[in-house]
Amino acid sequence: MKPPAAGGGAAAEAAASAGVVGTPMRRVDAEEKAAGAARFTGDLTVPGMLYGRVLRSPFASARITRIDGAAAGRLPGVRAVLTGRDLVDMDPYYGHAIKDRPVIAIDRVRFAGEPVAAVAADDVATADEALAAIEVDYEQLPAATTLTAAMRPDAPRLHEEPLRAGLFHGLGDLRREDGNICYHYRFSRGDLGAAFAAAAVTVEGEYTFPAVYQYAMEPHTVIAQWGADGLTIWACCQHPYLVRAELADLFRLPLSSVRVIVPYIGGGFGSKSYTKMEPLTATLARKAGRPVRIVNRVDEAMVTTRRHNMSCWMRTGAARDGAVIARECRIWLDTGAYADNGPRVAATAGDAAPGPYRWKAVGVDAWAVYTNTPPAGSYRAFGAAHLSWVAESQIDALARKTGLDPLEFRRRNLLRPGEDVRPGGKPLDADLIGDVTKVASAVGWGEPKPPMVGRGLSVGLLAAGANPVSTAAVRLQADGTAVVLVSTSEMGQGSRTVFTQIAADELAVSPARIRVMGADTQFTPYDRSTGASRSTTIAGKAVQRAAADLRDQLLDMAAAAWGLPVASLEVRGGAVWHETEALSYQDLIKRHFGMVGGELIGRGEVRPERGTGSFAEGPVFWEVCIGGAEVEVDPETGRLHVRRLASVADVGKAINPLLVEAQDEGASLQGVGNALFEEMQFEDGQLINGTLLDYRIPSTADLPDEFHSIIVENADGPGPYGAKGVGEGAQAGVPGAIVNALGDLGIDARELPLTPERVWKLIREKR
Amino acid sequence: MKPPAAGGGAAAEAAASAGVVGTPMRRVDAEEKAAGAARFTGDLTVPGMLYGRVLRSPFASARITRIDGAAAGRLPGVRAVLTGRDLVDMDPYYGHAIKDRPVIAIDRVRFAGEPVAAVAADDVATADEALAAIEVDYEQLPAATTLTAAMRPDAPRLHEEPLRAGLFHGLGDLRREDGNICYHYRFSRGDLGAAFAAAAVTVEGEYTFPAVYQYAMEPHTVIAQWGADGLTIWACCQHPYLVRAELADLFRLPLSSVRVIVPYIGGGFGSKSYTKMEPLTATLARKAGRPVRIVNRVDEAMVTTRRHNMSCWMRTGAARDGAVIARECRIWLDTGAYADNGPRVAATAGDAAPGPYRWKAVGVDAWAVYTNTPPAGSYRAFGAAHLSWVAESQIDALARKTGLDPLEFRRRNLLRPGEDVRPGGKPLDADLIGDVTKVASAVGWGEPKPPMVGRGLSVGLLAAGANPVSTAAVRLQADGTAVVLVSTSEMGQGSRTVFTQIAADELAVSPARIRVMGADTQFTPYDRSTGASRSTTIAGKAVQRAAADLRDQLLDMAAAAWGLPVASLEVRGGAVWHETEALSYQDLIKRHFGMVGGELIGRGEVRPERGTGSFAEGPVFWEVCIGGAEVEVDPETGRLHVRRLASVADVGKAINPLLVEAQDEGASLQGVGNALFEEMQFEDGQLINGTLLDYRIPSTADLPDEFHSIIVENADGPGPYGAKGVGEGAQAGVPGAIVNALGDLGIDARELPLTPERVWKLIREKR
Repeated sequence: MKPPAAGGGAAAEAAASAGVVGTPMRRVDAEEKAAGAARFTGDLTVPGMLYGRVLRSPFASARITRIDGAAAGRLPGVRAVLTGRDLVDMDPYYGHAIKDRPVIAIDRVRFAGEPVAAVAADDVATADEALAAIEVDYEQLPAATTLTAAMRPDAPRLHEEPLRAGLFHGLGDLRREDGNICYHYRFSRGDLGAAFAAAAVTVEGEYTFPAVYQYAMEPHTVIAQWGADGLTIWACCQHPYLVRAELADLFRLPLSSVRVIVPYIGGGFGSKSYTKMEPLTATLARKAGRPVRIVNRVDEAMVTTRRHNMSCWMRTGAARDGAVIARECRIWLDTGAYADNGPRVAATAGDAAPGPYRWKAVGVDAWAVYTNTPPAGSYRAFGAAHLSWVAESQIDALARKTGLDPLEFRRRNLLRPGEDVRPGGKPLDADLIGDVTKVASAVGWGEPKPPMVGRGLSVGLLAAGANPVSTAAVRLQADGTAVVLVSTSEMGQGSRTVFTQIAADELAVSPARIRVMGADTQFTPYDRSTGASRSTTIAGKAVQRAAADLRDQLLDMAAAAWGLPVASLEVRGGAVWHETEALSYQDLIKRHFGMVGGELIGRGEVRPERGTGSFAEGPVFWEVCIGGAEVEVDPETGRLHVRRLASVADVGKAINPLLVEAQDEGASLQGVGNALFEEMQFEDGQLINGTLLDYRIPSTADLPDEFHSIIVENADGPGPYGAKGVGEGAQAGVPGAIVNALGDLGIDARELPLTPERVWKLIREKR
Repeated sequence: MKPPAAGGGAAAEAAASAGVVGTPMRRVDAEEKAAGAARFTGDLTVPGMLYGRVLRSPFASARITRIDGAAAGRLPGVRAVLTGRDLVDMDPYYGHAIKDRPVIAIDRVRFAGEPVAAVAADDVATADEALAAIEVDYEQLPAATTLTAAMRPDAPRLHEEPLRAGLFHGLGDLRREDGNICYHYRFSRGDLGAAFAAAAVTVEGEYTFPAVYQYAMEPHTVIAQWGADGLTIWACCQHPYLVRAELADLFRLPLSSVRVIVPYIGGGFGSKSYTKMEPLTATLARKAGRPVRIVNRVDEAMVTTRRHNMSCWMRTGAARDGAVIARECRIWLDTGAYADNGPRVAATAGDAAPGPYRWKAVGVDAWAVYTNTPPAGSYRAFGAAHLSWVAESQIDALARKTGLDPLEFRRRNLLRPGEDVRPGGKPLDADLIGDVTKVASAVGWGEPKPPMVGRGLSVGLLAAGANPVSTAAVRLQADGTAVVLVSTSEMGQGSRTVFTQIAADELAVSPARIRVMGADTQFTPYDRSTGASRSTTIAGKAVQRAAADLRDQLLDMAAAAWGLPVASLEVRGGAVWHETEALSYQDLIKRHFGMVGGELIGRGEVRPERGTGSFAEGPVFWEVCIGGAEVEVDPETGRLHVRRLASVADVGKAINPLLVEAQDEGASLQGVGNALFEEMQFEDGQLINGTLLDYRIPSTADLPDEFHSIIVENADGPGPYGAKGVGEGAQAGVPGAIVNALGDLGIDARELPLTPERVWKLIREKR
């Protein structure tokens, strides 16, 4: 029995392994990505692979009266031309919430940009040439390209047929309402009429939120390959297991005959959640009889998914002393031509409407509405980002009406830890008052203000975690290094780094000994999805449990070898120790298997733990959406300048503070973009700013003068070491803070984005 | 609680899952392979891949006085030229038993065909052109190209430096003997001198066995790719985990930074055991900075590995009544220029020398000897194939001398089940007397014989199983299908089919629900190797245990759901049943995880179980090498015709009788080839029949008139359902049977192969 011989010896190893959780460890993929060596789906080829391109509808609404790919198919190098007629021996429709979307247009198109044909060819140029040779005759139909148009009683209907629930609908009955309603979410608590009657002050208004684009650097890319063993997909997808389920359902295959492999992803932000280009690529590959890769161009990605634009009406009432009483809200979300995640966005928006306050009555209706525009889906903090600024601007308005300081108003009304956010759900697990006080302080709350400078706060909650189901395995190799298998998609958020830290700490080894693999559904255990701020909390917990399971096996082996109780042993520096004697993990594996090798496998799972409160289904934890802003407005131009911006990452435990900060800062800055200038502009359903020259996203020039990301660690999360997820909240907190900073200047903004023109007009109106 | 809803309903599923173990289920890869859709390493490409070609030494022994790849490197399309000077930042030598082999020649070449340079280029033609442009000056050195030449006291020495043990030497001290001895294995039991003195009859002789080629249809093929995460190898290797270990050792990487992926293999027979072309390909890719694929041509494969040719002296004594007394044997195995698996072949040959008899004394020396010929390694039944026919021809000679029928002689002397084969090892676990009686009967033992027709028997044992270390995982998906992860290489032996059957039976589901993945060291659990007839017995046991672990989890869940004891439940048709109520696996997973999905992971491992006898290290089980033959000789031509051939597959339990038979028949026919005509011919170290036109392997024309493969199922193996491995024994049993059939005609053959010329000469000598 000797101390472990690994690397720089036991002492060095023990030092290296001491508490890497909580430290700002450099990303494990930093070098690879900085060197340009990291492989993304678009960097991959498979033998015999063809290049796919998609012909898209020029019309927002039309009947396809004729489509003829014969001439295109005869071009040299063209291997397959796919149209709606090829959707045989499969379910032609998909959609995780509602199966309303054809894999490729069948007789009818519902938005400008909808795929009507696809070509697989030997190279992209040939495929593009073939697209031009496809003959399509359209009969234009009346289109409903705005929420207003789609809600008219005589609006043209996008979907005539009854809606079929998708595999992951999960939002109750799909009772079809009239017209273009895709989904209706409603709830009410208390007696609204009586509550409003008792309110001494009320505010009321209509609000709009623009369609915005998630803008991940990597557009959607998919490779599909069919073989005797089924379908293999390489895709930049955030939810490999849900994509697998949808593809299996679509092609009527067992789950284990669909393999989804996820290389590095160049940003997701929700744009790569659920199923996007995978069915089309798979169907094209099936027809071509060869593997096919489709890489969206940016303008194609922009008509593949987007954030819902919204119209909303809200009324809020409070008592004379500033106690909130009642809120009523009606929300219309433009989900575009197909549901995608619209139902869930509607539900989440509805849930976000009340905000974290102590109401006597609330009543909320949220509708996802079909329009002849590109489908809208998930985007960071969806629902909460739509509603928080609305809800919080009415809180500020009430504060002003009751003569209270907005911070004080919130202190009086905000829920406290342990209080029910909604009946029967997860009680509040965050110190909102503490958090908002911190951001207020960071933006100079209470300090004297120069002219045309305003300050605002915003507090909201986001139901985070999605379904708490993740599984993981940790494989300890004979040299004491370990491979972590977990199906989280690494899309820049740093999950591999965080899992490395967790596994290293649980096993008491240097993080250099840990390697976290990417998702491959045929090999890496089930994970519900990457999104909803869930990965550190849920997948991370599964990794922690798998590593702990492994550690327990090692402790048991050492205990047996020494004839000592496990309680007298500890792990440290890649070894099990009893006082001054050590058995390295290598030694233990050698004793267990003999000299040739072998490995130990630890398993971990997270599943809904009803009654325990730790992994509840709704939600797993509450993510705070708290922002503070100090803005300056140029009255001559309407230009708004953010002087100070603060947000809170209330993460329970920052497993990697550097990554927490990066997530929070990124979300804040996307919040600035959404609040100030991002907007997809449509004319008659045509996207007219579908390039990154025309569609502006935040750059370093948009950074506030001061930028505070405040990490709060109260160990009140259900994740490893008390962690809660992060990365969405700030995006929903920042716009409200900016809107309320304008409100502080008497500017009542009800439409985003706050372009100079719009602000200038508001200033004029006010004067 | 409803009966399971899968597929054709519970009854169909239950019927389909009833006892697939023991049935001749069609190979799971049959369609794929018949359709040409199965992917082998040579079918794969990776992005940016270059094509590698190897320049080989024209001399058996030479000094490289100058090597200049500059001109080659300047050719357009050439990306790297590798020579021995590039073996920096790594261990330049590899070898799992002895690290004696340079990755590419360093200053000196030791056999004709040894790689001296390698080129990576944009295509194969350019690479070949570049090979021709590499300038090499050689100074020829004296060569020892035969065993005789290499054993002379003044023989040129191939290796001057002390031998370094490889990672998997495992055969005791590497004390260097004089000259060209690579390894010396010896043992003796009892007093040899006294025993022989007591022997009434003795026989003695010298024997030779030729160098033969394993001839797998697919030559060695490797793709190597370096990335930020280390080295990835796709290779047709039988031992992915041992290759991983050697590569990690060579390049000083952690095990988890080397990934070895094994696509389908087009036959192995030992030729792809351990490490072959992987280090060279990896080093070339490292220099090129891009992935490289090297595909051996057949003539290159033939100088990459082969079976050891052998010279041997043996003496055996018996009592007047036919009781065997003593045997003495000296074996010289020509291991070629580098050790490869020579030490283990020497040990196995030594162990095979006594045969399964009750000796009073034995003494064996076996030497692996270096010569200036291509390295010799593993080939089906190595060692046993070399020695069994020698040992058994002396048994027949003793039978004749003592006037006993050879079958009767064996019945009196053969070990019986439970007897020690060698002290302290695994006791005999096969009914040899029963087995040999069966083959005797199959070849007409005791029936009248036409002129020039002889019959022979041969009985031997092979220490099978190598090290009993395998691990496996079975992943049950939400739809009740399961993925089996196990690192056995599917090389045509049918392991994926057998594992499918085992997992299906343990889980009580249809085999259509099971998918067995190929080996990928980053994802599939540790397996020692594919070879030594071990996979069904050891990896199969790990799969069985993993599936059983999963089943136990399902039973526990159902027991908890019903509040019933596990003992009152059973699994059947993809469901857990209590009397007439069922919970399908799908239902159980849904209850456990909620509706979104999830998976259950079963783990299984096999490791040496000292003392229990079930998974002993030496050996795991005894594989019988039993053949019977009836041959007819044409005295005019010496041509030998096999009229009847029989072998025994004493498998404990035939999990798939069709595959057992295929293994046994293949081994028998390779035995025929080795016995009758296969021989690699060298002149001054140059292989002169290095094509498949010149090197003859058995074809359907060589099939015996009657071909019996007798499956014996005594459930006496340590594997699943009492299984023992199969596939090697017949190759070692058949040659002895043929040799003894000649002996039956008075023809005393001591050299293989039994070419017509050789047999004709023996007939002449006899006359």
